[in-house]
Amino acid sequence: MAEPAKNIKNSKTAITPTREENFPEWYQNVIKAADMAENAPVRGCMIIKPYGYAVWENIQKHFDKMIKAEEVQNAYFPLLIPLSYIAKEAEHIDGFAKECAVVTHHRLAKNDKGELAPDPASALTEPMIIRPTSETIIGESMHNWVQSYRDLPLKLNQWCNVMRWEMRPRIFLRTTEFLWQEGHNAFATAEEADRDARRMLEVYREFIEQYLAVPVIPGSKTPEERFPGAIETYTVEAFMQDGKALQSATSHNLGQTFAHSSDIKYLDKDGTQKLAWTTSWGMSTRTIGGLIMTHGDDDGMIMPPRVAPHQVVILPFLKDDADKAPILEFCDKLRKELRAKDISVQIDKSDARSSDKMWAAIKKGVPVRLEVGAREIAEGQVTYTRRDLGKDGKMKVSVDEFLNTIGVVLDEMQGDLLQRARRRLEGQIMDVKSLKEVREFFAADQSGGLRLDYSLIKGSDEFAAIKQEFAVTTRCLPFADNGQKVIVAKAY
Amino acid sequence: MAEPAKNIKNSKTAITPTREENFPEWYQNVIKAADMAENAPVRGCMIIKPYGYAVWENIQKHFDKMIKAEEVQNAYFPLLIPLSYIAKEAEHIDGFAKECAVVTHHRLAKNDKGELAPDPASALTEPMIIRPTSETIIGESMHNWVQSYRDLPLKLNQWCNVMRWEMRPRIFLRTTEFLWQEGHNAFATAEEADRDARRMLEVYREFIEQYLAVPVIPGSKTPEERFPGAIETYTVEAFMQDGKALQSATSHNLGQTFAHSSDIKYLDKDGTQKLAWTTSWGMSTRTIGGLIMTHGDDDGMIMPPRVAPHQVVILPFLKDDADKAPILEFCDKLRKELRAKDISVQIDKSDARSSDKMWAAIKKGVPVRLEVGAREIAEGQVTYTRRDLGKDGKMKVSVDEFLNTIGVVLDEMQGDLLQRARRRLEGQIMDVKSLKEVREFFAADQSGGLRLDYSLIKGSDEFAAIKQEFAVTTRCLPFADNGQKVIVAKAY
Repeated sequence: MAEPAKNIKNSKTAITPTREENFPEWYQNVIKAADMAENAPVRGCMIIKPYGYAVWENIQKHFDKMIKAEEVQNAYFPLLIPLSYIAKEAEHIDGFAKECAVVTHHRLAKNDKGELAPDPASALTEPMIIRPTSETIIGESMHNWVQSYRDLPLKLNQWCNVMRWEMRPRIFLRTTEFLWQEGHNAFATAEEADRDARRMLEVYREFIEQYLAVPVIPGSKTPEERFPGAIETYTVEAFMQDGKALQSATSHNLGQTFAHSSDIKYLDKDGTQKLAWTTSWGMSTRTIGGLIMTHGDDDGMIMPPRVAPHQVVILPFLKDDADKAPILEFCDKLRKELRAKDISVQIDKSDARSSDKMWAAIKKGVPVRLEVGAREIAEGQVTYTRRDLGKDGKMKVSVDEFLNTIGVVLDEMQGDLLQRARRRLEGQIMDVKSLKEVREFFAADQSGGLRLDYSLIKGSDEFAAIKQEFAVTTRCLPFADNGQKVIVAKAY
Repeated sequence: MAEPAKNIKNSKTAITPTREENFPEWYQNVIKAADMAENAPVRGCMIIKPYGYAVWENIQKHFDKMIKAEEVQNAYFPLLIPLSYIAKEAEHIDGFAKECAVVTHHRLAKNDKGELAPDPASALTEPMIIRPTSETIIGESMHNWVQSYRDLPLKLNQWCNVMRWEMRPRIFLRTTEFLWQEGHNAFATAEEADRDARRMLEVYREFIEQYLAVPVIPGSKTPEERFPGAIETYTVEAFMQDGKALQSATSHNLGQTFAHSSDIKYLDKDGTQKLAWTTSWGMSTRTIGGLIMTHGDDDGMIMPPRVAPHQVVILPFLKDDADKAPILEFCDKLRKELRAKDISVQIDKSDARSSDKMWAAIKKGVPVRLEVGAREIAEGQVTYTRRDLGKDGKMKVSVDEFLNTIGVVLDEMQGDLLQRARRRLEGQIMDVKSLKEVREFFAADQSGGLRLDYSLIKGSDEFAAIKQEFAVTTRCLPFADNGQKVIVAKAY
């Protein structure tokens, strides 16, 4: 079969520029080619299109099950936070709560010029901000709900939108509005809180590796990189194909900071009032950016089967109208049989040319493409291709064999994607022994992260200079190194 | 077994006041007793607590499947809408878009007095409003996405939060912020759009009746009651136990109103540019208020099994510590077996007294309570009670029989709740033949709705006076009466 044109420009890859040529532009173009999201007319915000949103729905579905197994309960708290709540926690404000959307009026009215404008008569006595995160408002509820040690632990989560005014937005990675889950747990003791913060990080690690097939380095943030108000921030750091790090989820041991500012107290068994200990933990739509930059190639997106909107796409190759009815009937039957096996499947019934259908599916990163034409039906066979294997992945098998093995094929692809990314990650982290090597590495604009003794950078003026000069950040102190080593890298 | 105290006041019902005594206050107290939601510290907003949110999650789960079967795709659009978008559609603004939260600044800073305040330097050049609904911003995307007849129909939905500044908020029923789904569909022809608006109303009817067990009257709104900008608004109207109507979901045929203001055009097969036709349809957390006011009784909530957070609650009755281990083990085994049958189940392992456990489950409206004590285990039997049948519903059966019949028991309860509510609804609507009867009915403060010839009220000054005097509204022109009759009632 002749290789069809990859795109109208007949370039060698479906996405131009390639990752090698211009990684940031490649990223934008993969999102566009896969039809996942676009910039909104509202500055810094995005529109998550159906194909991108379906990934988020799958993330929600699977991760929600995992947190419910941890006895976390979902709830919903208000979008707007009164200014006085935010003002309560000084460290929190200084950290990041300043760049936020401020609501000052509650009505529009026509002004002198006959234009619609905020009605001066509707000015709020206390301005409110759109939540950048909800520690302060959920803290108020915890204050009301927690009375006795019997009310603890209290584990709450909400799936919602939040806003942080971004000056340099990037779709999925850094947007003024984004979707996330934010968990907020309260405990009777410091030990339980720290155990919980670490446990939720482990749940993130498992989810991100097993569902998104993105390998991560779990560890602690350095004190400077902690969430404002936290006594420990735990993080799972991924590395993208361009060697930059992406913080994929964080879990914070908030100590008694918010328990103190929100007055979350409980009557202990010994009859005394005690201050609770809290944690918070979040993962957002930015993980979809990480998914793209981990798995995508120069032909577009590659979806890990466990979160793919469609795990299989059936491509009916219709040469003439006479074929159409039997081929579509055959495809419908296949779809039904795949669905019975709990495999998500779509048929591309469009009028597009076969090669265009194929390339659309490639750019969208559908894990398995199934080609069905008159010849396949006559032979009782189907041709399928795994997205991650390219031409070598093309297999011709009987319909029965396809149906019997598709589950395994998808599982293998899921495993292979993780393994490939893990091998890459291992090659992306280099061990160094001096700040001189650190400077040389970043001065030469090398790709990847460095691991070195934490003692080398702590309080070091030279490291501060390197950070400044090359926009390098400390990513984490990996658990694997018992806090003795630090990973430094450029980051998203 | 002696009847345990219903609450600490030893009143005859678990909820005081009763429905009869004070329906609005009963409503608030049912929500409180079932621990479903509470007023937020933010004016007009609510906090949906885990037990209430679990109902919303079930609504989302089931309804989402139904709309996906209609080939609707979920997506996500920005929370903030620029003022100029809203200003585009004059009728829309006049209708309801004025009472909304207005964002005017994007940063907080300390003012002269050292207090945190909106930073004057961060004033937005164009204020934005928090979406009260998203026709205008989704219209902008449809303008971009729709080019050819091949792009139609386009069916989009989002599950999100919206805000409409409410002066008289009531929990679930009317809150400044609420959660909902809003569907927005675009079509090539007027006929398809109207068919779709009616179809989505039918999907609502089916969902609300079959899952929420709330019978509704489907029909058209009168022109005065239409959604601002719509050429037809279809509605499903429910009647609460106090005889007031509750609009449970609406579906709008928007004609070309928004296609015109957002310029949604497509190139038709005949080579000419045509304006599209759009619909929108929404259902919100207010349905939970309807659920409570339809099914709840003087002992609290009654959850229809299909949306109940827990369909079965197991109540271990622990008299002494020696019993504890074997009883809890027995309960765990039961839970496992119920879960294997896809029945959601919880064990109340708290230290509370048996009677308190029982009353907590009654007030929460758990469909089936299962009592397990030492005697039950010895006899190999369990005692279960359907929440809606009171003491008569208590059954003692073998464990095997319970496990074999619980699915049927829950289905029967679901059906009985709908049937009971339907019988009540039928009794709540009275046919009348004159405006004199209408006046007398409402003057006597009778409960329920009236059905009369639509021609009697159209353009009638007397009816306008009645509406004004008794706060009566026209609910709908029922489909069943082919638009000849109108239902009038007081409403939430």
